[in-house]
Amino acid sequence: MTEKTLKKKTLIGQRIPKLDAPSKVTGEAHYLQDIALPGMLHGKILRTDRIHARILSIDTSEAKALPGVHAVITAEDTPVVPLGFGQDNPPLKGDRVRCTRDEIAAVAADTEAIAEKALKLIKVEYEDLPAVFTTHDALKEGAPVIHDKHPNNTPFTYDYEHGDVAKGEQESDVIVEDTFELHFVTHCCMGVSGIVADFDVEGNLTLYSQTQMPFLYKRDLAPVIGVPAEKIHVIQPIIGGAFGSKLDVYPFEPICVFLAKATRKPVRIVFSREEEFLASPTRQPMQLTMRSGARKDGTITFRDVTTLHDNGGYTSWGATTPFVMMQAFSSLYRIEHCRYNTTVVYTNNPYSGAFRGYGNLQATFAIESHMDKMAEALEMDPLQFRLHNAQDAGETTLQGLHLQTCGLKDCLTTAGERSDFVAKHAANRAGQKGPKKRGIGMASLFHVGGGAKIYHTDGCGTILKVDDYAKVTVLTGASEIGQGSETVIAQLVAEELGVPLTKISVVNNDSEIRPWDVGVHASRTTFIAGNSAQRAARKARQKILEAAATKFDTTAEKLDLRDGQVVRDDSGEPLMELGKLLRALHFRDKNEIVVTSEYYEPPSVMQDREFKGNVSPTYAFATQVAELEVDVETGVVNVTKVTAAHDVGRVINALGIEGQVEGGVIMGVGYATREHLLVNDGYVTNPSFRDYKILTAPEIPEVDFAFIETMDPEGPAGAKGIGEAPAICTAAAIANAFYNATGVRMYGLPFTPERVLRALKAAAGEPVA
Amino acid sequence: MTEKTLKKKTLIGQRIPKLDAPSKVTGEAHYLQDIALPGMLHGKILRTDRIHARILSIDTSEAKALPGVHAVITAEDTPVVPLGFGQDNPPLKGDRVRCTRDEIAAVAADTEAIAEKALKLIKVEYEDLPAVFTTHDALKEGAPVIHDKHPNNTPFTYDYEHGDVAKGEQESDVIVEDTFELHFVTHCCMGVSGIVADFDVEGNLTLYSQTQMPFLYKRDLAPVIGVPAEKIHVIQPIIGGAFGSKLDVYPFEPICVFLAKATRKPVRIVFSREEEFLASPTRQPMQLTMRSGARKDGTITFRDVTTLHDNGGYTSWGATTPFVMMQAFSSLYRIEHCRYNTTVVYTNNPYSGAFRGYGNLQATFAIESHMDKMAEALEMDPLQFRLHNAQDAGETTLQGLHLQTCGLKDCLTTAGERSDFVAKHAANRAGQKGPKKRGIGMASLFHVGGGAKIYHTDGCGTILKVDDYAKVTVLTGASEIGQGSETVIAQLVAEELGVPLTKISVVNNDSEIRPWDVGVHASRTTFIAGNSAQRAARKARQKILEAAATKFDTTAEKLDLRDGQVVRDDSGEPLMELGKLLRALHFRDKNEIVVTSEYYEPPSVMQDREFKGNVSPTYAFATQVAELEVDVETGVVNVTKVTAAHDVGRVINALGIEGQVEGGVIMGVGYATREHLLVNDGYVTNPSFRDYKILTAPEIPEVDFAFIETMDPEGPAGAKGIGEAPAICTAAAIANAFYNATGVRMYGLPFTPERVLRALKAAAGEPVA
Repeated sequence: MTEKTLKKKTLIGQRIPKLDAPSKVTGEAHYLQDIALPGMLHGKILRTDRIHARILSIDTSEAKALPGVHAVITAEDTPVVPLGFGQDNPPLKGDRVRCTRDEIAAVAADTEAIAEKALKLIKVEYEDLPAVFTTHDALKEGAPVIHDKHPNNTPFTYDYEHGDVAKGEQESDVIVEDTFELHFVTHCCMGVSGIVADFDVEGNLTLYSQTQMPFLYKRDLAPVIGVPAEKIHVIQPIIGGAFGSKLDVYPFEPICVFLAKATRKPVRIVFSREEEFLASPTRQPMQLTMRSGARKDGTITFRDVTTLHDNGGYTSWGATTPFVMMQAFSSLYRIEHCRYNTTVVYTNNPYSGAFRGYGNLQATFAIESHMDKMAEALEMDPLQFRLHNAQDAGETTLQGLHLQTCGLKDCLTTAGERSDFVAKHAANRAGQKGPKKRGIGMASLFHVGGGAKIYHTDGCGTILKVDDYAKVTVLTGASEIGQGSETVIAQLVAEELGVPLTKISVVNNDSEIRPWDVGVHASRTTFIAGNSAQRAARKARQKILEAAATKFDTTAEKLDLRDGQVVRDDSGEPLMELGKLLRALHFRDKNEIVVTSEYYEPPSVMQDREFKGNVSPTYAFATQVAELEVDVETGVVNVTKVTAAHDVGRVINALGIEGQVEGGVIMGVGYATREHLLVNDGYVTNPSFRDYKILTAPEIPEVDFAFIETMDPEGPAGAKGIGEAPAICTAAAIANAFYNATGVRMYGLPFTPERVLRALKAAAGEPVA
Repeated sequence: MTEKTLKKKTLIGQRIPKLDAPSKVTGEAHYLQDIALPGMLHGKILRTDRIHARILSIDTSEAKALPGVHAVITAEDTPVVPLGFGQDNPPLKGDRVRCTRDEIAAVAADTEAIAEKALKLIKVEYEDLPAVFTTHDALKEGAPVIHDKHPNNTPFTYDYEHGDVAKGEQESDVIVEDTFELHFVTHCCMGVSGIVADFDVEGNLTLYSQTQMPFLYKRDLAPVIGVPAEKIHVIQPIIGGAFGSKLDVYPFEPICVFLAKATRKPVRIVFSREEEFLASPTRQPMQLTMRSGARKDGTITFRDVTTLHDNGGYTSWGATTPFVMMQAFSSLYRIEHCRYNTTVVYTNNPYSGAFRGYGNLQATFAIESHMDKMAEALEMDPLQFRLHNAQDAGETTLQGLHLQTCGLKDCLTTAGERSDFVAKHAANRAGQKGPKKRGIGMASLFHVGGGAKIYHTDGCGTILKVDDYAKVTVLTGASEIGQGSETVIAQLVAEELGVPLTKISVVNNDSEIRPWDVGVHASRTTFIAGNSAQRAARKARQKILEAAATKFDTTAEKLDLRDGQVVRDDSGEPLMELGKLLRALHFRDKNEIVVTSEYYEPPSVMQDREFKGNVSPTYAFATQVAELEVDVETGVVNVTKVTAAHDVGRVINALGIEGQVEGGVIMGVGYATREHLLVNDGYVTNPSFRDYKILTAPEIPEVDFAFIETMDPEGPAGAKGIGEAPAICTAAAIANAFYNATGVRMYGLPFTPERVLRALKAAAGEPVA
């Protein structure tokens, strides 16, 4: 009998198709839209057609009389507890509307068509109020007040400082100052917003919700709907994209609960695509004034930033983007003196939520535009200027962020070399003939890579069970929103237990059975849920190896698990099929089964009142080089290639991480060149994919991936989280490439033909219509 | 501020409505019949109309051509791996049929009606074979052979012995010998049999199955359907009764899987009520010859039993009832010499499965009839005779069953006193006028009370999670089949954690997420799953109290959990709301959550080859006294009252245990007086509730409950399992009461008017038609 030996193989770094891919591509996957509970009704929401108005009366009598209508509700019928991060947003507005999406009434009916018909029968009388649509206007003396609680229209300010900016200015040989204008964009999730609410006879509430944060969701929703958190059961159907849009509670969610309560039947609300554009959150628009300086040797001396954030009519997570922006300002490069003052301003515009990158796209657009401007002023190559100011592993930034690993210099040189940046950049600047101008530009980024401790815990729980057939069930707190966490978690567990991925089942959508997790945000899932799953798996591994050691009269350290077998670690000699060992443990040797659990808490801290402290256990870096062609006659900007060098700690799923980076780059290119939610006097004027341009397949640039593996010592298998990073610096790189191509710098987005032509003409001193 | 103090309260012994009652009584509960998966087809099975025949041909062409039919399958299209306990039963029969329910072909169609129509289009040609319908005929030389593997038609024999029966006979002053005939009855679950099979695109199989043993089910089903056990996911919908009928794998289950495989769609099979009578298992009929002896002083000397079991055409669990019967023979009373020989015989009758009591109804009917006969022969009061032979706690029976607790004497005296047995019994015997004769009779029982270790483990796993709001999720291996285990488990957990029952959620229906359990049988769930849950809860309690002790600078022992509060154990002074403490533990003090797990293995052993050994950690005892009226003119027996004194260890849910006992008594009265599955030449002739008489509300006797609390030291809170016990001795008590009323002893069941009149006439020497 020849003895087969099993060599140590690893799943880490392999190209693994997402575990949920087969069900998604075959149409087997069930989304919210597929949920049809017995007796379920369909809910629709009446939204205001005014921008700022007092509600004088709402007449629902005709709507209520329509056959097939089960309930029509207004603020009079429901609790009015304001919701959202700012707790300033009543689910149904009874007295006043403040922006275009405001919810006035809701209907539950047998069909969506009947519900829509009923909406048209509701009569609302208003008294219009003066409205305000810019932060500047909203801050003027005598401006209309949006919320009486904030007579100056300023719900939040943030002020950050380290060093002494005045001193920095004195030490500067070069100073640049500019004002940047960032625009409205929205998430464009392929799966529109929606929810199903279902009370049982005992008043327990099951919500089929697309939330990204099922546990905090219960906490946040409970006071609004008047149902105790422990009676709320959250089941997440497969989520068709979230990107931060599902991080807060929005009015449609309690409204659906109220309809379910009123009708004593399950109720489903699913947005139309138009409604998704009108009534889901946006990326926060802002005006950003930045002043930066450097010494002749290329050392940055200071950065001084002031931003005015258009908060819209209510306050969701968009208002807190300064938390993340200040990290980029303070810590993307070594900055001795840094100051950042924010004013968040109510207007009658739509309001914004969390959105992949979370203010960092806006911050990085400004920072990296300035890096190029300073490099030019110093007559340095932009790559060299950045390298000169880039940090190294082991440093702690002056905001207190500790860079245990830091691949920024590697990212810069790798992206530079792979794209031939220095030569192309210089050649383009030397001048190009014809109307089509090529440009190359680079930008780097800094972002949290393992969560951000904004709650007193940033942890994630795992429960792991191995059955008699070595089938592993992983109950994880982490949610799958399309980012591929299920696959990464399965890989990490399979790696520890030496079983194929087909043996791993990740259960991640039911708040009743899985342990707590903060939610999907701050690029934390791979890092934190990954660590949690890996540690639970290690406990299981240890238990299994100890059982095997007893059986084979050796020690656990001398054994390994490979290919579903217990093997001798040194020789690879297979000793026993893993399932057989587990059955022996269960049925013969000890009457034990393998169940473990873990709650992983990262070694990060909450920041102090000055926003200082190591808020994440690790940080992601990247450099992206964008190459583009500008047609100066038509204004069309065509991004042809993006070279993306990312410090990812370590690649766990090579296919998954390429997907994440490619998706982020596409989002960044869209943000820079196409996407624009047009808001005119508070009204959204392009609520459709015909008029709101997201990138389509032919417009997607070639993406050249380079993964810098800095092997984070705390990360699972060395990995960092990079969910948000890929979207962050693309627009900045494109802006620098645009300048490289045309010699004209644009201070606002997007680079649409009209805006490009205006900028080119203005730069050329030509009249702009 | 007045300080409220919280006294120690207990949930144990309270009257708790079943936790699933509200959903069941309002119609909210979803049964198998309510499952409607997208694209689901309906399966129907063609059963043979012959009893014993060779299949010559099956023509499915017309059925296949019927519009709406997706697949028609026969044995030719499927694996033919025999299933069931005896592994002698192919899912689809391709060559031969052996009894009335045999499965020939199956159809999956858009609707049940189309499927039924298609069945009628299938043409089967047979060659009839000689059939055999009694065990005696089947054992005759030259009898038709049912399975070639067993040319003597005897798949199993069991032989048990302790002591020396011959010696016992010599020592006897009184010897009685009788032959008893036990009949076919069936479970009559309100929810008929059924299953839904659903493959995903990767070949994982989800079964919505009513099985009572989801984990062994996977093991047993896997080789039959050719799907590895780890790819089978079992979800149990709410089960409308099981009583043992769902303890084995039956042909409709793999057939449904084959249809799902053939059609690549989910398929549901739901039995009609007629099909449920024809094609679900029965209680095993048997002929039982018993010889018993006693000395003048009332001491039983020996018991010698021979049984012939009608196994029907195939072997399911019914064939193993001798395991349980021998325990009653050997251990219900002190028996110095005991012998039991069984022959299990194939016939062409329907085959039997597990059924609440598992042979013990039949055994106890004989034992307790003999107890009364011997008492009469010895001129002793039946109660005194039983008390004289009853065992005490601490004894180990000669089969090796250790009675750590034993409430039999208490049961006897309590039942006797509460029913005024001695006086009534004597009065009735003294003679009654008129056609209506009153009778009173008693019988006791002995049964396992905490499982039976017939596998190498008899354990149950629990995973327990406490969330930030002190909501507790208990993932238990135990299945709820209507017996109320969910409520008992919740009570035991709530008791440890000092929270109300509304805070407990028991998750008990998904093999993917819950840990292993043997299944629902041998009255084990309260004992074993209860212990498992209680121990998991104790671990959680300890973790919580330790966290509280740190917070309040004391020790865990000095604290308690009451009414959702952490309190000082001595004074009851509330220190902190439990949820608040958990949130402090999670968010502030330690960043920990409370998750625990337990695998409880009872201290029982597998029996040796002689069937000796302590197979259960505890044993249930009871005495029931039946009172009845016999109309000697019509033969109608009307059971008016049953006094049921049960050693239950300890009452956990007073309402639940009354329901269990009442349900068991009703089943016992039905078995004794009404129920009879009529099998004529192999055909079931009364497959409907019109013709098969189960007890209806007006026929249900008054039940007087007495619970003897022997406080089992190993049981959870002192409890024993009593799922089966209440049904076991009712028929025996009724037989003794019938004798008390009429002076005529009946040796067979049921006591229907026809059978009663025949017996009375025969006893009177009158001609019987």
